[in-house]
Amino acid sequence: MKQRRISKSVNIGNVTIGGDAPIVVQSMAKTDTRDVKSTVRQVKQLERCGCQLVRVAVPDREAAEALGDIKKAICIPLIADIHFDHRLALAAIDAGVDGLRLNPGNIRDPQHIKKVVLAAKKRKIPIRIGVNAGSLPPTKDARKTTVERMVEATMHELDLLESLDFGLIKVSLKAFDVPETIEANRLIAKRIPYPIHLGITESGTPRRGAIRSAVGIGILLWEGIGDTIRVSLTGDPREEVSAGYEILKSLGLSRRGPTLISCPTCGRAEVDVVELASAVDKKLVRIEKPIKVAVMGCVVNGPGEAKNADVGIACGKGKGVIFRNGKQVCTVNENEFLSALMAEIDRL
Amino acid sequence: MKQRRISKSVNIGNVTIGGDAPIVVQSMAKTDTRDVKSTVRQVKQLERCGCQLVRVAVPDREAAEALGDIKKAICIPLIADIHFDHRLALAAIDAGVDGLRLNPGNIRDPQHIKKVVLAAKKRKIPIRIGVNAGSLPPTKDARKTTVERMVEATMHELDLLESLDFGLIKVSLKAFDVPETIEANRLIAKRIPYPIHLGITESGTPRRGAIRSAVGIGILLWEGIGDTIRVSLTGDPREEVSAGYEILKSLGLSRRGPTLISCPTCGRAEVDVVELASAVDKKLVRIEKPIKVAVMGCVVNGPGEAKNADVGIACGKGKGVIFRNGKQVCTVNENEFLSALMAEIDRL
Repeated sequence: MKQRRISKSVNIGNVTIGGDAPIVVQSMAKTDTRDVKSTVRQVKQLERCGCQLVRVAVPDREAAEALGDIKKAICIPLIADIHFDHRLALAAIDAGVDGLRLNPGNIRDPQHIKKVVLAAKKRKIPIRIGVNAGSLPPTKDARKTTVERMVEATMHELDLLESLDFGLIKVSLKAFDVPETIEANRLIAKRIPYPIHLGITESGTPRRGAIRSAVGIGILLWEGIGDTIRVSLTGDPREEVSAGYEILKSLGLSRRGPTLISCPTCGRAEVDVVELASAVDKKLVRIEKPIKVAVMGCVVNGPGEAKNADVGIACGKGKGVIFRNGKQVCTVNENEFLSALMAEIDRL
Repeated sequence: MKQRRISKSVNIGNVTIGGDAPIVVQSMAKTDTRDVKSTVRQVKQLERCGCQLVRVAVPDREAAEALGDIKKAICIPLIADIHFDHRLALAAIDAGVDGLRLNPGNIRDPQHIKKVVLAAKKRKIPIRIGVNAGSLPPTKDARKTTVERMVEATMHELDLLESLDFGLIKVSLKAFDVPETIEANRLIAKRIPYPIHLGITESGTPRRGAIRSAVGIGILLWEGIGDTIRVSLTGDPREEVSAGYEILKSLGLSRRGPTLISCPTCGRAEVDVVELASAVDKKLVRIEKPIKVAVMGCVVNGPGEAKNADVGIACGKGKGVIFRNGKQVCTVNENEFLSALMAEIDRL
């Protein structure tokens, strides 16, 4: 893995993005922002599963006015997602949000942007320049690639912000296309000193979208690029957070929560590994400590993986050997597999 | 993306692995191999979702004897997965399999390996040297890293096969740890001319495991390494195949089946995007053609993404605009979203 690109850092509320701060997992509420109760409930759910920053849409004035009440009721920093109308950004700043996302594709009047930047500067509120391949500023040059246009839109807005002596900047360049996203982020990473928010936009329903996001975000993180991530999924936002942590954990960039090592099972297994692993997976949800648990169906890799995990089981015909910290602890019968494994986990 | 490493190619049945052949998606049956009926049923299911090669476990003689009947009843090439007992490899060759996987970690007697190689050579049956971090050969040198031991086990077996003038070789070096798997494959890719089978072993239950596999396999493919992939998931093997294709599609390395672009939805959406996208996703399962479908919740990125897709919908309050091949086709009411979108897809 390449050494991480060290960016300037910015603080969004009490969360640091960039520099050598751990990579931050964020999500976005999917509720109607004007419905304070539902939005707060969803943000609370996100907080419980480890979401570190939350963004909400601000499509109108009523939504902007709800931000103050939402902010008061939640613990993690709140970011307002602004499109089209710069006055909503001003209203969000007044409501006390911790950060703004502006889309350079649909707020283009430099005077409007200037007003927002000056207000943000006064309150020390960071702005993300959030470029999206689906909403780029128009271009007269038809030969320009999407990647060139993404980078250009970012640099144009960045110049404007810097000309106002504003440096509390984060950027994101997202596309549905993974190679385009990677290329755009590689280019921008070389040109600017600010932290980068990674994501694959409109990546789809949870199963497909998590895979696409894992490929794109994973490759960029492997190249040392990225300071905060959001996995965009058409589904429950808690799935975005858990997918985000799985991506980070797979590269050793986070240690939040358990890691489950389980074999895919095959004609060699003499127990129902799928059932056992699913049951263990469900039980592990309540655990926040970074433990490694192995559920293995046979003697091929079973003892090896079970020994390497903090707690593991290597199953055979009707029997399973339980390991803890690399040592064989006991042999149990099939009906005790789950309870014995969970008992060892509790013991840790 | 780096240019693909060009390896020698080998044919497993009628499927070419390596060279400039498209990257092959494979899976493994999870049934008891001795149960021919269940195994054939599962392989048939895998064939229908695009699986190009299938492997089955051969834990005993009875399983080896079932291979002939399985082979006769299926269309895709059949690979026998052999551990511990070289005689099972000989029996599998006799039964007419198209390929073998041998684990150098548990078949170590050079005389045994020689017998298998000579029999495979006679029938032109390729052998995969399938190294797994969970079942490495023992080492006397405690300072060696897992990656070093994985590469060493591969090279040791490779030397033996080459000394017998056998060249129908594929290799795999799998670990649960993603950086270890990447490092081992990078090292072996430089040292040998043979095709490489990629996978992250014991990667867990479908959602977590698909993410971990997507990160590891995705990074290696991005670096130009890999000729066939298997996503190991503790679940239905059809999920392994669809995850494999999602990984390939995200990097433009396969065009099998539809691609769904759908926004994550937020407080800006005035329709239930999650419900609509999930319904579209389900309907798309029956389609094999490489079409792009966009389901978008609002005007921010909606029109942009819907225009770029083959068929798309950009929703607003109670209304949606349908696009086909970049052109606006019609405006429909909310109760017609799904049917109108599917009608346009059928029209393509």
